[in-house]
Amino acid sequence: MEKGKLYGVGIGPGDKELITLKAVNTIKNADVIALPDSFSGKNRAYEIVKEYIDDKETIYLPMPMTKDKEHLKASHESGAELIISYLDKGKNTAFVTLGDPSVYSTYMYVHRIVESKGYNVEMVPGVTSFCASAARLNISLCDGNEPLIIIPANYKDNKELLKLSGNKVLMKSGKKIAKVKTEIEECNLTDKTYMVENCGMEEEKIYKDFSKISDESSYFSLIIVKG
Amino acid sequence: MEKGKLYGVGIGPGDKELITLKAVNTIKNADVIALPDSFSGKNRAYEIVKEYIDDKETIYLPMPMTKDKEHLKASHESGAELIISYLDKGKNTAFVTLGDPSVYSTYMYVHRIVESKGYNVEMVPGVTSFCASAARLNISLCDGNEPLIIIPANYKDNKELLKLSGNKVLMKSGKKIAKVKTEIEECNLTDKTYMVENCGMEEEKIYKDFSKISDESSYFSLIIVKG
Repeated sequence: MEKGKLYGVGIGPGDKELITLKAVNTIKNADVIALPDSFSGKNRAYEIVKEYIDDKETIYLPMPMTKDKEHLKASHESGAELIISYLDKGKNTAFVTLGDPSVYSTYMYVHRIVESKGYNVEMVPGVTSFCASAARLNISLCDGNEPLIIIPANYKDNKELLKLSGNKVLMKSGKKIAKVKTEIEECNLTDKTYMVENCGMEEEKIYKDFSKISDESSYFSLIIVKG
Repeated sequence: MEKGKLYGVGIGPGDKELITLKAVNTIKNADVIALPDSFSGKNRAYEIVKEYIDDKETIYLPMPMTKDKEHLKASHESGAELIISYLDKGKNTAFVTLGDPSVYSTYMYVHRIVESKGYNVEMVPGVTSFCASAARLNISLCDGNEPLIIIPANYKDNKELLKLSGNKVLMKSGKKIAKVKTEIEECNLTDKTYMVENCGMEEEKIYKDFSKISDESSYFSLIIVKG
């Protein structure tokens, strides 16, 4: 029997309309839908794709929000094994991921394991949270000769990158917002700082005034620093 | 009469399926479609959206591929004026742009002029060329604690940014490919370099081996350097 193929499907930042035609078609054509089962991602991802799943088999992969590397690695391995058990039955499996699969997604860990075992894998790109946030702010991320620097949530030295010329995105800053705010102040960038909390969700909040950014912001907060 | 609204609609990197539902709906609901009339962008953008335009009024904005700042500024001003003439008639206008409007798009110049004159503007984010290229390469752009640095086509000092830790994207490197290749060699990054030429098009080429990258590559070539 021919093996199934794994698709890593980016479904965009959270707004149901910001899914691509390719993501919809890939989900509709798949035999099995895999969803990340993490406290933050599960409901959002499911809410976006549920209308395309119909009565397909749906599996939930435990993706713990932990920094314990062994624990993380074990969850990626077991997720990959579960998916492989379906690929071995010839079932094409669509692993649904918020945003874009190439940008800080848990999907890629599973993708690499499954690919290394000789299975076919394919990624379907999606709209990133930073492009969606710039759109909600009505601003550009980068023009002309300006570089754009994307800084992950737990980067070791934000100030080192904030000091470079170009525009910056600080991903999912919510948990460390007080620290990030201090760093932005120390780099004299407060008047060039914008934030979107829960972009595209009902509870979305847009901040164009640094002094209004709360220390209690949600995990899904993204900061854009211009210039 | 109520004024019309300007929508900046990202239609993705070139693959017809990589347009979002929101982009399709915005185009279908608009009264007028504006397309950039540049030698590189016109046909690609039109080919993607033509099936949604039907018999709507379509206008072409001259967007010259020049570095002459006065010439560029004049073309943005006249593009904005043309759009405003439709907004003043109450016509909602969708300006279609390849990729995402917040990432190195000509649209933003027109957007800022129109917004500064008191009109309503809205951006519809799209899939970027770098996310689409990573998907075609089956690789991530950034994992875990890795920053991602997007370097524009005409950046003054690529090596300065190539030397930083993290992953890099060199946008539209085609015209300067020989220079960029030398810079990558000088930074000892040849074994971490990938390129996609004409991503998502019929003439697409994927390079996972640095030595195979041609000095004659197209304007629409994007390089990803890992690590």
